Amino acid sequence: MFVSECNIRVRYSETDQMGYVYYGNYAQYFEVARTEALRQVDLTYKMFEEAGTMMPVLSLLCKFKKPAKYDDLLTIKTIIRVLPSVKMAFEYEVHNAAGELLNEGETVLVFINMKNNRPTACPPNLLEKLKPFFEQ
Amino acid sequence: MFVSECNIRVRYSETDQMGYVYYGNYAQYFEVARTEALRQVDLTYKMFEEAGTMMPVLSLLCKFKKPAKYDDLLTIKTIIRVLPSVKMAFEYEVHNAAGELLNEGETVLVFINMKNNRPTACPPNLLEKLKPFFEQ
Amino acid sequence: MFVSECNIRVRYSETDQMGYVYYGNYAQYFEVARTEALRQVDLTYKMFEEAGTMMPVLSLLCKFKKPAKYDDLLTIKTIIRVLPSVKMAFEYEVHNAAGELLNEGETVLVFINMKNNRPTACPPNLLEKLKPFFEQ
Amino acid sequence: MFVSECNIRVRYSETDQMGYVYYGNYAQYFEVARTEALRQVDLTYKMFEEAGTMMPVLSLLCKFKKPAKYDDLLTIKTIIRVLPSVKMAFEYEVHNAAGELLNEGETVLVFINMKNNRPTACPPNLLEKLKPFFEQ
Repeated sequence: MFVSECNIRVRYSETDQMGYVYYGNYAQYFEVARTEALRQVDLTYKMFEEAGTMMPVLSLLCKFKKPAKYDDLLTIKTIIRVLPSVKMAFEYEVHNAAGELLNEGETVLVFINMKNNRPTACPPNLLEKLKPFFEQ
Repeated sequence: MFVSECNIRVRYSETDQMGYVYYGNYAQYFEVARTEALRQVDLTYKMFEEAGTMMPVLSLLCKFKKPAKYDDLLTIKTIIRVLPSVKMAFEYEVHNAAGELLNEGETVLVFINMKNNRPTACPPNLLEKLKPFFEQ
Repeated sequence: MFVSECNIRVRYSETDQMGYVYYGNYAQYFEVARTEALRQVDLTYKMFEEAGTMMPVLSLLCKFKKPAKYDDLLTIKTIIRVLPSVKMAFEYEVHNAAGELLNEGETVLVFINMKNNRPTACPPNLLEKLKPFFEQ
Repeated sequence: MFVSECNIRVRYSETDQMGYVYYGNYAQYFEVARTEALRQVDLTYKMFEEAGTMMPVLSLLCKFKKPAKYDDLLTIKTIIRVLPSVKMAFEYEVHNAAGELLNEGETVLVFINMKNNRPTACPPNLLEKLKPFFEQ
């Protein structure tokens, strides 16, 4: 299992007139969180695209427990439970500074070869970086 | 069962560098679609808030089949399968102009009394408007 | 002078906790408005990109008079005062359903040849469509 | 003169199909930058709203020089040239990690008393914090 954490400060633009973070904006937070998870093992999603692999999202699930508010400093925990194959699943937990669980989410992405637009295996450099976290 | 449809034209701002609609933007499309579904029975979500009831989202699910692209004219079908109680579930199907199914989604919302911030029953005027669609 | 109008319904996602449309979202409205202005002369911005010309924005100016609110049906007037050359200027006026002027804006865009990434002349088909509006 | 700096990492959601940051997203970056400018003198915009003063934007100006790209680590310099009165002007300069100037902007905000919705003087605590930067 691989776990990483990152912080996101809620922007004013991300609130709605309910005074909460708009529910659709968590997808952006999850994107930032998984990007930072990769950066923690010295990889960037940008590198993957430059090397010809993109990762569109196949599914998104969010469960909203409590609202995030303007200027909250959120902590997003990103969890990879299974070594990626053609697909890669990320789980997310969003907490506020008081430690309250605000939101739980899950995304499944697929590796796509940008040349032929078809699914492809997880890039070897990513697999190599993640393997140590899945060994006993 | 209540079914309604609305059209949304994809904005440039909603695309990302993959050339597709960013996956987080479907939550906005679903919001527009359920708002227009209510308008079709002569109600607006705005009225509900003005009358003291808000509807935060409890859960969001999206399954992405094919990408929507810039300037696509999307048709979003909104389906209400069950009469709302304290919660209200909406299902969505997004098609492009070629009739391809791009995306399926689901949101569950809860009625909240804005005075005490607690769950409350579905407003009677909404229930009344929807009932005919659920009778045989 | 070429003038066109389009309508945009304010989405919940576009409001912020002030209860107004977030100031940064007018840039999106302007984009929709200029796209619809082109469509009115049977052209689309999409065609231009497919033909190898893109139009990045060089400058954006907005003056905010009154706030737009959730579910407002806005009318955006787009004005082209000068025939485009290498650059193209659009002016915008945003009114609400009560006829109040909410916002005035201006964008200048530049035609870029996507092959060499350099400025280029306005596509002839656009010029041809606009010319009649600038003759006496 | 008061100057502060903050960093913003470009999110995938903020790009468009041109492969650049969408021009409307700089308004968000400017919002983050002025919020962080205030935080640097131990104030938050959130405090102002909680104390009954909000700051809607009166005007926005952006001049786009070069595009920001996905995953760029931007530095936003925020400049306050004049002590605020009823209005407060911020200037912004956006640079990428290579030191290139990408964008220059300017916003003017107004202090509004949230009770009567009318313009009001700059909150004294803000004025006090800024004064030392404007003395010789």
